[in-house]
Amino acid sequence: MRYDGTAYHGWQVQENAVTVQQIFQDALEALFGARLSVTGCSRTDAGVHALMYCCNFRTDSAISCEKLPLALNAHLPDDVGVYACREVPADFHARYSCIAKRYQYRLHNSPCRDPFFVGRAAPYKTPLDADFLHRQAQDFLGTHDFAAFAAAGGSVEDTVRTVQDARVFRMGDVVCFEVQADGFLYNMVRIMTGTLLGIAEGKIPAGSIPQILRSLDRSRAGVTAPPQGLYLKEVLYPDDLS
Amino acid sequence: MRYDGTAYHGWQVQENAVTVQQIFQDALEALFGARLSVTGCSRTDAGVHALMYCCNFRTDSAISCEKLPLALNAHLPDDVGVYACREVPADFHARYSCIAKRYQYRLHNSPCRDPFFVGRAAPYKTPLDADFLHRQAQDFLGTHDFAAFAAAGGSVEDTVRTVQDARVFRMGDVVCFEVQADGFLYNMVRIMTGTLLGIAEGKIPAGSIPQILRSLDRSRAGVTAPPQGLYLKEVLYPDDLS
Repeated sequence: MRYDGTAYHGWQVQENAVTVQQIFQDALEALFGARLSVTGCSRTDAGVHALMYCCNFRTDSAISCEKLPLALNAHLPDDVGVYACREVPADFHARYSCIAKRYQYRLHNSPCRDPFFVGRAAPYKTPLDADFLHRQAQDFLGTHDFAAFAAAGGSVEDTVRTVQDARVFRMGDVVCFEVQADGFLYNMVRIMTGTLLGIAEGKIPAGSIPQILRSLDRSRAGVTAPPQGLYLKEVLYPDDLS
Repeated sequence: MRYDGTAYHGWQVQENAVTVQQIFQDALEALFGARLSVTGCSRTDAGVHALMYCCNFRTDSAISCEKLPLALNAHLPDDVGVYACREVPADFHARYSCIAKRYQYRLHNSPCRDPFFVGRAAPYKTPLDADFLHRQAQDFLGTHDFAAFAAAGGSVEDTVRTVQDARVFRMGDVVCFEVQADGFLYNMVRIMTGTLLGIAEGKIPAGSIPQILRSLDRSRAGVTAPPQGLYLKEVLYPDDLS
């Protein structure tokens, strides 16, 4: 499925806040007449978007996988859309079966507001050199302890992750930072983005990402970039599942 | 300026409906302390968007053209954004000085809803052959009486227009019809789009656009495609003005 996260407090069900999981469970309930348990591939933060989000649930419904997207979309609001369903083995787990995720962070790099990017990219007025930031971002590649790039409040103990791809490129007024890893820590992409912007602004020295990584010190990395620029772009599973 | 037209009843001030002209005049009033007369380059229909919209007004304000966009944006809602201002000769008229306009019609060509295109492209589920439609659209080129492609209710008497460019292309799930002319009749691009879709659906014979043009008969052309797919993309002025 895809969703515009603007109106949601992320994926995961919460008390006193509307989440994508909740409205997806509402749609399943409207369709199947029962409240099903749904497992998502990732928590996402409030305001973060998904171009591809995977979740799994169990049903003995006779509705085919082909027809399920349209049937679900009829019960979902405009800012959430299902585009594919498939049968998976009984032990499939949207989060634990996932082998890698790919995120994209979009900066609307222009002095003036563009109404078509409001809420869908983070505004950044000063001109950015995408090629320079691309070279800086190469220092994220590989297996590192990303503790310096994790917000407090994450639940994981092991903060070692492997970044498989990191790139920065420009498309018109939009500068994208795209990063793929076997997993991400809490706010990791937003802190990576804030660090690249800190380098662009001269607040963090160019070439210092390796030192920041080694420091394991959150205060050495940049600020947490705002949520509206972040998109979960791809969720990867082993070949026999995807 | 640019605007997402979803929330507006077009550009032109109306009683009992919110229009872009009105909120632009409100912003000018907040900035200059007086209600100025503003001339737009085009009426646009309710729900139609603009990637480039030009308007002119007269002020003796000391705010420079460089600073005016940000100053105005501070008083405009998120769905309208000014990106440039310039001084023009006293006889400049945003509508009458314009020598050509370019529109783009976006079709989200997918069986499933994409939340990022809701309100910003017209959904069209059946796969379209953009190359085939591009060849059909070439029949719009040149100087013709476009009476068959004008909705009732337009105020103009002369329905002859010159189409300078017409193309259909695909970008991922989006099929775009882009057309440039010295002027457009009421609903002309939406009826052209509806006609191309009628050809795609076999309801209108391929190659029959020249006959429809000659008929001057609105009922021979296709339906009026919905407003949310339409973008005013460019407004062209003589070189010494632009």
